[in-house]
Amino acid sequence: MGMTMGEKILARASGKDLVKPGEIITAKVDLCMSNDGTTHLNIDIFENQLKAEKVFDPEKVIFIVDHNVPSESAKTAQVHKKMRIFAQKHDIPFYEGTGVCHQIMIEDFVVPGQLVIAADSHTCSYGGLGAFGTGVGCTDFTSVMHTGEIWLMVPETLKFEIEGSFKAGVYARDLILKIIGDIGANGANYRIMEFGGPAVKKFTVDDRVVLCNMAVEAGAKTGLVEPDQTAIDYVEARGRHDMNLFTSDEDAVYEKTYQYNLDELEPMIAIPHCVDDVVGVTQIGDVKIDQGFIGSCNNGRIEELRAAAQILQGKKIDPYVKLLISPASKAVFLEALAEGLIDIFVESGAMVLNPNCSVCWGSCQGVIGEGETLISTGTRNFKGRAGHPNSSVYLASAATVAASALTGKITDPRGFVV
Amino acid sequence: MGMTMGEKILARASGKDLVKPGEIITAKVDLCMSNDGTTHLNIDIFENQLKAEKVFDPEKVIFIVDHNVPSESAKTAQVHKKMRIFAQKHDIPFYEGTGVCHQIMIEDFVVPGQLVIAADSHTCSYGGLGAFGTGVGCTDFTSVMHTGEIWLMVPETLKFEIEGSFKAGVYARDLILKIIGDIGANGANYRIMEFGGPAVKKFTVDDRVVLCNMAVEAGAKTGLVEPDQTAIDYVEARGRHDMNLFTSDEDAVYEKTYQYNLDELEPMIAIPHCVDDVVGVTQIGDVKIDQGFIGSCNNGRIEELRAAAQILQGKKIDPYVKLLISPASKAVFLEALAEGLIDIFVESGAMVLNPNCSVCWGSCQGVIGEGETLISTGTRNFKGRAGHPNSSVYLASAATVAASALTGKITDPRGFVV
Repeated sequence: MGMTMGEKILARASGKDLVKPGEIITAKVDLCMSNDGTTHLNIDIFENQLKAEKVFDPEKVIFIVDHNVPSESAKTAQVHKKMRIFAQKHDIPFYEGTGVCHQIMIEDFVVPGQLVIAADSHTCSYGGLGAFGTGVGCTDFTSVMHTGEIWLMVPETLKFEIEGSFKAGVYARDLILKIIGDIGANGANYRIMEFGGPAVKKFTVDDRVVLCNMAVEAGAKTGLVEPDQTAIDYVEARGRHDMNLFTSDEDAVYEKTYQYNLDELEPMIAIPHCVDDVVGVTQIGDVKIDQGFIGSCNNGRIEELRAAAQILQGKKIDPYVKLLISPASKAVFLEALAEGLIDIFVESGAMVLNPNCSVCWGSCQGVIGEGETLISTGTRNFKGRAGHPNSSVYLASAATVAASALTGKITDPRGFVV
Repeated sequence: MGMTMGEKILARASGKDLVKPGEIITAKVDLCMSNDGTTHLNIDIFENQLKAEKVFDPEKVIFIVDHNVPSESAKTAQVHKKMRIFAQKHDIPFYEGTGVCHQIMIEDFVVPGQLVIAADSHTCSYGGLGAFGTGVGCTDFTSVMHTGEIWLMVPETLKFEIEGSFKAGVYARDLILKIIGDIGANGANYRIMEFGGPAVKKFTVDDRVVLCNMAVEAGAKTGLVEPDQTAIDYVEARGRHDMNLFTSDEDAVYEKTYQYNLDELEPMIAIPHCVDDVVGVTQIGDVKIDQGFIGSCNNGRIEELRAAAQILQGKKIDPYVKLLISPASKAVFLEALAEGLIDIFVESGAMVLNPNCSVCWGSCQGVIGEGETLISTGTRNFKGRAGHPNSSVYLASAATVAASALTGKITDPRGFVV
């Protein structure tokens, strides 16, 4: 009996020929990463509880300051300082203010076939490159940082077969919102969501990451897309050539298979306050917004910025609405500069922010007040995610956010794209 | 007996032919502006205490959100919302996140000869265009917003005669730090600082603003530079043609006159924790920094960004140092984009922020932690200004900040400029 690609990655990582769902394995970790959400706790455990002296491999432990950067308080600055000092002492890669952690990992570290553990729930993003990424809490992370190993239960796999093509104004973001709306926020609990089919084979790495990144919002352990020439080209262009191309066997066993056709997809919106409360933009009615946000590990890459720029070009945002745009990394920022997108954004009246988690994380940039409404390309919309407990977050594509910032209410982007 | 230009502006505003230092006048205000530092209090007084229904002139009352934007907390968001609702209701100009208030006023509103009152201490900046700007608290401001009038005591005037030319790596910022170091933080208490002489006649508006902006740091009521063709060209290029060109009479009376020669000036640094504790960069010794900041109403304009870019081009900042750069307005941001400066900053590893007060104000972006050191182009360096009470702020030019970010310690920029 064959294995799915996720099972194969876990088999390799645990030194086995075969693993089965439900089996507990001890796996070697190829990379681990922690950001300023919890690293100060990791360091405390590492130094004071474990009394550890060295990380397992200084080339495989990465610290990234991305959540509250630049720091909005002296307390946050202390967290960053602690990370900086630890990184210098242990001579590990350190990034501060140059990108959202997952985007930096994808650009600079991850290759197909790896097992990557990080202290952040959206580590499942790396499935866009065919790597098994999953998030853990800081106790587990500290153990990984020290030993390079972790125990895991092998998950069941769900298959999502995608066919058809996006119509103008519809994006990978809409597809993953649609899927989560269909299967529910618990619809993939501790499962692998494997995205495939003829449409996904034509997806860029950016779009594949958009799908895998949100897998955790359906409860999944990770999201995965089979690595192919698109994935190989992406990592080789960045100087990384050593990788394992695991694909699922013909006779691999899936717990369930879902079918989607992009031809039928419209722009989708997750409405407050649940990520799985998803409706088509045509069903949304008259929803006034106070702020738009384009960015995050889900939707702050060059393709999303291009989609937004196409809509904002030559237009002005509503004068009583704010539009925040944070490119997901320094590399994305430079690309957007080269393509003239930043000019378009600033001209339109948007606030262009340094690469960081921003209001997706709700704690330092663009926090919304009582009764305010945000439309966001971020990852979550639970009550209070972006600020005041009595505020509302709608999740949508970059194009929908851009169109909505122009009109001041949630707006179908298809009226703005050619 | 003649009058100084400051006295002439106050005479016109109070409908008199002649005013003298020490005289109390009631003056008509040409423009008034309030930002998110205190506007929520102004609105409370206006609506609940005064029970006022209209501002004195909706074209002359300007609200600008610049201090904590995008908002770092739900509480701040409420302040912004309150401003937004009031501005819409009274149909007054409203800006949010598109620039530091004083830079927006200079670009979009102020003309020579005006009396401008704003609820912010650095309103003295407008002297760069030959307008009398001064800051007031929110009670006074609310009265101005309601009546369009204010009482003022006519100040004595101090004259600063500047000759010579800047050497490479030395800027207007260094001159004003030098002057404040010489006369002290109380050296111009309730005086007008009038900057003139052959050097200032050749200064750009940007450089004139740099001088006038810091006048309040020596205790002055305002700073002024005589308006000439340079000032006229600046405002006419922005569509404003109605102005009063007041210059000081030959026989005007100055309380004191100071002489400066730019040929003798070196890059200057205000060391912690007093703005008047100023030394030459060659005297600074070995001072490690954690963060640099280029921006603010003092030093975030295109000329300062050019100076910084010249030093950063093709180089990388110290990996354990952050460099924050916030263009002072949308217009400055667009100019910097067109000149390729933003590319240089992002390439160098700097964080490019949306136009706002940022860490100069110390409350939302780049707040520093215990024991940390900031070198900043901001306006103030008192204990705790940029974050933790036990942190340090050095004030310097954009060029000095840029050079210091490259090396990780306070560095003479003259080794980097051609």
